[in-house]
Amino acid sequence: MSSSTSSETQQLLHNVHELREADLPEQVWLRTEELFLDWLASAMASCHTHPIPAFARLMQQMGPHNGRSQLLALPDVGGGNTSTSAYWAAWLNGAASHTLEQDDLHNSSVMHPATVIFPAALSAAQDAGLSGRAMLLSSIAGYEAGIRLAESLGRSHYRTFHTTSTVGTVAAGLAVAKLLNLDMAGLTSALGSSGTQASGLWEFLRTGAGESKQLHCAHAASTGLLSAYLARDGVRGADDIVQGPQGLMVGMAKDDTDAAKLAVPFGQPRWALLETSFKWHACCRHTHPSADALLDALTKVDRANIKRVTAKVHQAALDVLGPVDALEQGPQSIHAAKFSMKSTLALIACKGAAALSDFETYALKDPEVLAFRDKVHMELDKEVDNAYPARWLGRVDVELSDGTVVHGRCDEPKGDPGNTLSREELEEKFKRLVNVHAGRKDVDADRIIQWCWSLRDQKDSRVPLP
Amino acid sequence: MSSSTSSETQQLLHNVHELREADLPEQVWLRTEELFLDWLASAMASCHTHPIPAFARLMQQMGPHNGRSQLLALPDVGGGNTSTSAYWAAWLNGAASHTLEQDDLHNSSVMHPATVIFPAALSAAQDAGLSGRAMLLSSIAGYEAGIRLAESLGRSHYRTFHTTSTVGTVAAGLAVAKLLNLDMAGLTSALGSSGTQASGLWEFLRTGAGESKQLHCAHAASTGLLSAYLARDGVRGADDIVQGPQGLMVGMAKDDTDAAKLAVPFGQPRWALLETSFKWHACCRHTHPSADALLDALTKVDRANIKRVTAKVHQAALDVLGPVDALEQGPQSIHAAKFSMKSTLALIACKGAAALSDFETYALKDPEVLAFRDKVHMELDKEVDNAYPARWLGRVDVELSDGTVVHGRCDEPKGDPGNTLSREELEEKFKRLVNVHAGRKDVDADRIIQWCWSLRDQKDSRVPLP
Repeated sequence: MSSSTSSETQQLLHNVHELREADLPEQVWLRTEELFLDWLASAMASCHTHPIPAFARLMQQMGPHNGRSQLLALPDVGGGNTSTSAYWAAWLNGAASHTLEQDDLHNSSVMHPATVIFPAALSAAQDAGLSGRAMLLSSIAGYEAGIRLAESLGRSHYRTFHTTSTVGTVAAGLAVAKLLNLDMAGLTSALGSSGTQASGLWEFLRTGAGESKQLHCAHAASTGLLSAYLARDGVRGADDIVQGPQGLMVGMAKDDTDAAKLAVPFGQPRWALLETSFKWHACCRHTHPSADALLDALTKVDRANIKRVTAKVHQAALDVLGPVDALEQGPQSIHAAKFSMKSTLALIACKGAAALSDFETYALKDPEVLAFRDKVHMELDKEVDNAYPARWLGRVDVELSDGTVVHGRCDEPKGDPGNTLSREELEEKFKRLVNVHAGRKDVDADRIIQWCWSLRDQKDSRVPLP
Repeated sequence: MSSSTSSETQQLLHNVHELREADLPEQVWLRTEELFLDWLASAMASCHTHPIPAFARLMQQMGPHNGRSQLLALPDVGGGNTSTSAYWAAWLNGAASHTLEQDDLHNSSVMHPATVIFPAALSAAQDAGLSGRAMLLSSIAGYEAGIRLAESLGRSHYRTFHTTSTVGTVAAGLAVAKLLNLDMAGLTSALGSSGTQASGLWEFLRTGAGESKQLHCAHAASTGLLSAYLARDGVRGADDIVQGPQGLMVGMAKDDTDAAKLAVPFGQPRWALLETSFKWHACCRHTHPSADALLDALTKVDRANIKRVTAKVHQAALDVLGPVDALEQGPQSIHAAKFSMKSTLALIACKGAAALSDFETYALKDPEVLAFRDKVHMELDKEVDNAYPARWLGRVDVELSDGTVVHGRCDEPKGDPGNTLSREELEEKFKRLVNVHAGRKDVDADRIIQWCWSLRDQKDSRVPLP
């Protein structure tokens, strides 16, 4: 590292460099194993879901047909390789784990950490023959660093850029750099090279073109990994890619950046990873608070009497969900429906849930659901917006046919740290996604689950796949 | 294409789609062959120059060890494959052709088109078994589209972003999409997927970390190619990635964007490709006008009497060259010296030229050159800045020991369209770079040169390498 790195960024890199296994409380190890299992479910379950077969075909054209890194989603596209080079495994596993909208989210950074960090760390660990413990430690470094960087970029960055993609590239790069045990100069270069390749715009949402969302994660995971490998081999990156005058903060954020957030220590007392939320509903996280608030309201009213549902939301929900809700014909794909507040709340109201199977069975064709969509509206709410992104509050006003209005609320959506999923719920989610949704009867779910629960002690980071 | 694509972007895509061989005047075919030969020289000559050996090692780890696309730079890093998949060939050839700072530049867009467009188009053409003519046509589409996009983003974009990297991703994507004969929907998706992966910040210059510049070109060429391949396979991108409210113009430029520039017809009368400049001096193009102006002044003064040289420049020269010139110890690598006005003008003054061999032999260690550097300064000049980027004017004030000031000027630097390189000069440049600089005695330069001069008639786009 050079002295021309700004001090907050230096501190961040120092914290990554100094992170040791012995520093990690039991709670962090346990939660990381849980996040990993939750991620694995998403990565393995999308094998038949567009665009993963198309991505897999490209990977087979461009990458080697064997290698040390496992492919977790294996659509039947010919070729039949189950492993490839670290780059392409990170690429495909990254795309796969962000396809079903069931992967984790960190609230205050508004970033999905698992889908970009685990694919990179796992592929690199397998490539280097490293242990489950090494993979977990480096992933924790990726979570802590990535979340801090995302927070420091402020809300203006997220308004135009898909933070999971932009910051995800850097988080993946630092996780792999940690795994490869790079020194401070190497970490600085991994940060520089990943930061200068960070990209990902929200524009794709406007036409429901969900495939960019998966492409972003593929890009972030693989490019981050590549940057760390290059840094190990002496390829130097910019010294101050985050804070420099022609760096990320200047180029891709406005005046709400906060560099101090970069320097917040790891685990003294804050472990950002512990604040990560699991997804229960199978849709964009911005819909979840309203979905849970509507579930609350539904305990008090008869659905048949509902005339109008107003979801009172933060600005980012309008930015991300607004474009899909504005489509004249409504969403035209299951993926797009997951970015529609109208579709999500219609499922909650009519079917009582917004799980994967609800989206696939009802979201695009159930007449009741389609009709209910028109009753749903979003409205910016000051209280909700002020609390965001530290807290994701759910507030809905449900207007009945007789004009009365019933309020629904949720202060901590299901899956949030204070309302988290138990290990049993995570195990059930894994089986539901992999065995039921993807129909992968060959996968021994119990074996994989048990492997995850002892991942810290696995000398080999290869997932026990069939 | 969807109606939700803004009309100027629609027009740009329409122009790419409609471009036909029959539309191209002889002059455009000839110049494209010249640009291609000039690019080939840069791509083949950097095989021993850092960071290309490191990049080649990574490519060998991550890509397949054979394939249909040629590797043009072949450092001896073991493995010894001479071809790989289209993705990795585009990646390595893109990096290689931007390593020696001898590749072409388009003035008004301030973009290096060859280094991002040709690697992608050539790799894809070889992958698909297409002809030299098809490769040239698609590259011309890439030049015309890329230059228009770069111009439309305005000067504010270039201030923070390396346009060759950002716009280059899109230009490469559209070139390959044209080569693959995609329809309007496919072109729109190639644009969407490449645009949302566009990246590249100038920050790396501040510490002379030149490797990011090559990484940017590798990323642009390979990612553009990948986006076009995915579009062919039905992976959809954003409909309005350039002009949409969460797209490139909003996210990565300020209020000086000009969408009308996107819609300027191809060749009626403007062929943007014909405005492209070849590089004579082996350094950043922003130094060339001053270098030629100093050569003019040197015809009137005795070098021994020079006390101070003031290069009167446009703002972008200060932005790009300023960080290197500000380094206390001066540039520490040959590559960094190429981004130093001080080093470049010192070579011109002391050695009469700033060719590749001058940088390598003298820039870092010749005492006379090192001493002269301190006499060189840059100053923003209104006339020069106002003319930029349409014209790159050279103006220097040379102050002599007795206090008199001699002016040097150049209105069209050597290599510019009005002062272009002849075919003989391009042939000599090719041999100088490949046979002499890179020491590739095995390469039959005359055979490759003749092949390029009849590239339009080559059924096979494979370069006749040993």
